[in-house]
Amino acid sequence: MSQAEAIVPAPGSLFRSEIFEQPAALERLLGANEEIERIAATAVARNVQLVRMVGHGSSDNAASYGVYAFGLLPRWTAVRDSITLTVHYDTPIDLSGSMVIGLSQSGQTPDVVEYLLRARKAGAFTVAITNDADSDLAVAAEATIALGAGPELAVAATKTYVNTLGALALLAGHIAGRGAEIESGIRGAAATLSDSLPAFEAATHSLALPFAYTGRMFVIGRGTEFATAREIALKLLETCRIAAEPLTATDLAHGPVAALDPLFPVWALAAADGTLATVQEAAARIHAMGATLVASGTAATAVTVSSYRLPVPPTEPALLSPLLSVVPGQLFALALSRARGLDPDAPTGLNKVTLVT
Amino acid sequence: MSQAEAIVPAPGSLFRSEIFEQPAALERLLGANEEIERIAATAVARNVQLVRMVGHGSSDNAASYGVYAFGLLPRWTAVRDSITLTVHYDTPIDLSGSMVIGLSQSGQTPDVVEYLLRARKAGAFTVAITNDADSDLAVAAEATIALGAGPELAVAATKTYVNTLGALALLAGHIAGRGAEIESGIRGAAATLSDSLPAFEAATHSLALPFAYTGRMFVIGRGTEFATAREIALKLLETCRIAAEPLTATDLAHGPVAALDPLFPVWALAAADGTLATVQEAAARIHAMGATLVASGTAATAVTVSSYRLPVPPTEPALLSPLLSVVPGQLFALALSRARGLDPDAPTGLNKVTLVT
Repeated sequence: MSQAEAIVPAPGSLFRSEIFEQPAALERLLGANEEIERIAATAVARNVQLVRMVGHGSSDNAASYGVYAFGLLPRWTAVRDSITLTVHYDTPIDLSGSMVIGLSQSGQTPDVVEYLLRARKAGAFTVAITNDADSDLAVAAEATIALGAGPELAVAATKTYVNTLGALALLAGHIAGRGAEIESGIRGAAATLSDSLPAFEAATHSLALPFAYTGRMFVIGRGTEFATAREIALKLLETCRIAAEPLTATDLAHGPVAALDPLFPVWALAAADGTLATVQEAAARIHAMGATLVASGTAATAVTVSSYRLPVPPTEPALLSPLLSVVPGQLFALALSRARGLDPDAPTGLNKVTLVT
Repeated sequence: MSQAEAIVPAPGSLFRSEIFEQPAALERLLGANEEIERIAATAVARNVQLVRMVGHGSSDNAASYGVYAFGLLPRWTAVRDSITLTVHYDTPIDLSGSMVIGLSQSGQTPDVVEYLLRARKAGAFTVAITNDADSDLAVAAEATIALGAGPELAVAATKTYVNTLGALALLAGHIAGRGAEIESGIRGAAATLSDSLPAFEAATHSLALPFAYTGRMFVIGRGTEFATAREIALKLLETCRIAAEPLTATDLAHGPVAALDPLFPVWALAAADGTLATVQEAAARIHAMGATLVASGTAATAVTVSSYRLPVPPTEPALLSPLLSVVPGQLFALALSRARGLDPDAPTGLNKVTLVT
């Protein structure tokens, strides 16, 4: 090895350092708490009837969490809205009673920016959630929540994803008059995550070898943890080149279960909440197909047919558990990517900022 | 071969006969046109603010089409709602201004029935779309649209899916005062489909062999054809055991494109509408990764980097094209399943009626 090669960092060193930086990033998000409280007050004053979230990739996965943050805290209906209807089909939908949240780490995603520009003209209350408070998205929106995650250099998003979950929970919490509880919950989650990272890394490192030749996976979850299932599947796709498809625990039984075999494993997110029975039922079907099952989440140990269990400590309130439960998936993607001889910092065919329409 | 074996039907004979029955099934759906017109009048009279659709599997895929049927015709916001929030988390969401549409071929899906029962109590206008007008779902709902598809015996849904699209288009059309236009459009689509089936079968039959050893695929679409992408991916999962993941053309670029290689092909739905540029852009990225690309849909020939093209004739209005564009995917799943030595009529691990929670 030449000296020039010797100083090249290990594959995935950026990805790993950003995964480990997530507790500190969550603490920095709390610097936006007062601004988020003001935005919540505006949403209430404007009598918002519907929350419409728009984003792609990890941002859209975070929006799946937003459905539950707004649903469980202020009991508002929040949806992942169609960008196409407004931007590509140019349909004049009535957006006057809506809060529109544009989600983009870079703040540059073209059709998300365009959607917000149109929504603002149509009378919606527009909010940007972005890691770049000077971006086009922030300029387009009436209000901006700055993620404060710091520069994210690995192509695969980690800390911006977790901070987006935190931002959505804080906004929903303030709307529900429970902002202080959520703020304190995020601080607690950051501390628990900091304590848990070494154990998460050790457990996922030893899990990588048995999965080194895996080409296909399902990642299942339901309710608040469906966002986690989507985000872990995306990490596996982009850093490990595994065809990893996210499914709700229930949709798995409506067809896809038929594709499983012993070389087609499943990662199941099991939360200690009202969805646990659906995940356990799916686990029994997965087991019956002979597929290897990894269970993670706060109720991982309750999935007794699983071959591997990666329990995640609880949060208070439980709604915040997705801030932690994605992290074993991120670390598994890191370990598996390295085991397969790939560099998770620089996946083929991707750039950090995606400028497609 | 013994005489007893000789009378066993060929693998996939049920699946194939139901695919070919779809034009007749669509004609039968039109028998519900007057009832659908009455339901539309009730929805308008009740001043519906939001359409909430709930279902799993193919029914949920049809709901993706409903987003555009309601968005483009009456310009109403329609969403695939969270079942979990209401049923598993027991959250009292205000549903009084909503039309809730429960989608289930069998009418027996437990959490969809439970959602409708709760929504009706909460003041929503509840509508069942089902192939069994005496089912639990029909009993739970205030109004029922009977699909009239006739008995569907293959496990993988075909004619009930296409009829569900037609039912959603008719309902949205009547709400928009364009019911007669949609009725006539469905009749025309059924005739075009009937004419096209032999050519679709010949083209997909010759396509099966090059894909016989495929383990992973993406199926991409956007806008009205995203439902088609989801449904084709589901057919490939359940009948061919391919890990087929549906993605919007734009989400593909936000990470998953990195997983592609020459053995990881993509099926792209290209429609002659405002989304075509997004699909062409995705196609260029797929081509750059060396992946084989199949283009289908009304604008298949406009995807010049594709290796295979399966053009689908246009419909009038264009919004109805998903009633046709799913069919080459169904026939490809049939041919590929047979080429792989599987029986698409009886996938492992599945029953026709899925009773999981």
